[in-house]
Amino acid sequence: MSKAARFPAPTTKSESEEGTTFAPHFDADGLVPVVVTSAKTGEVLMLAYMNEEALARTIDTGEAHYWSRSRGRLWRKGEQSGNAQRVVEMRADCDQDAIWLRVEMTGAGAACHTGRRTCFYRTILSAGPGGGVTLSFDEAERQFDPEAVYRHAGAAKRTLKSSE
Amino acid sequence: MSKAARFPAPTTKSESEEGTTFAPHFDADGLVPVVVTSAKTGEVLMLAYMNEEALARTIDTGEAHYWSRSRGRLWRKGEQSGNAQRVVEMRADCDQDAIWLRVEMTGAGAACHTGRRTCFYRTILSAGPGGGVTLSFDEAERQFDPEAVYRHAGAAKRTLKSSE
Repeated sequence: MSKAARFPAPTTKSESEEGTTFAPHFDADGLVPVVVTSAKTGEVLMLAYMNEEALARTIDTGEAHYWSRSRGRLWRKGEQSGNAQRVVEMRADCDQDAIWLRVEMTGAGAACHTGRRTCFYRTILSAGPGGGVTLSFDEAERQFDPEAVYRHAGAAKRTLKSSE
Repeated sequence: MSKAARFPAPTTKSESEEGTTFAPHFDADGLVPVVVTSAKTGEVLMLAYMNEEALARTIDTGEAHYWSRSRGRLWRKGEQSGNAQRVVEMRADCDQDAIWLRVEMTGAGAACHTGRRTCFYRTILSAGPGGGVTLSFDEAERQFDPEAVYRHAGAAKRTLKSSE
């Protein structure tokens, strides 16, 4: 990297666990997992990933930024859907290889790309030890129509691009 | 693996997101990240990882089992410290590559190996855009003394082993 690292590299286990230096531990892909909860309800909304730049931008702007593993690019949450996340609090875990983000949702209040409030809209149910395991939908009401929102955003983006 | 897989392999994106088949998506290391919250307070306690066996045992026994990446082995939460986790609810996220576990803690009620209630005992504080980032301790009171608990458990285990 030509740019200086924004965060120092982790040093000792004791410093990671008991120190006041924020030295996040990124994995082999340069990512750290982020648990996102609603500051209002406490509900877990999603699990996402940040690279160093996404983490720095989130801290500097107060708006959640992530690294999209599927699209291979930095992503400001809500840039297409309008469902952004304002950071209320950020916390680091003991070994600084996970982050907890408490956020306020904007827009339709849907954190999930399927249009739902939370990505965790299904419960795991078991028929008993060694038995079948299925998913049961609840918390599954859509706050927006993903087809319409992402098609529209995609179209707008293409228009913008072709006019540049 | 000589054993048949306990869970079916993921198929299509649409089936992962809108189906009732639980077909968890394990990463290249065979792991899935698990967000663990307190069923009582809603607080995020830890982020851990499960392999297929840990996931199956958790579902079958109602006691949280994880894969320890540092020790390279399956681990029943609380097996040494007595701070076990009874599963109240398990949820899967949209693309079934993350799990949310709502648990009741037993023992001293400390999810963290440092003896604290939660692994997220430090807040990330920023001095402003581009500025210094530090950690501030709160929720950091220890519920048990990790030195005593793990030394004792280690010693007991060694004794047991040598007497076998």
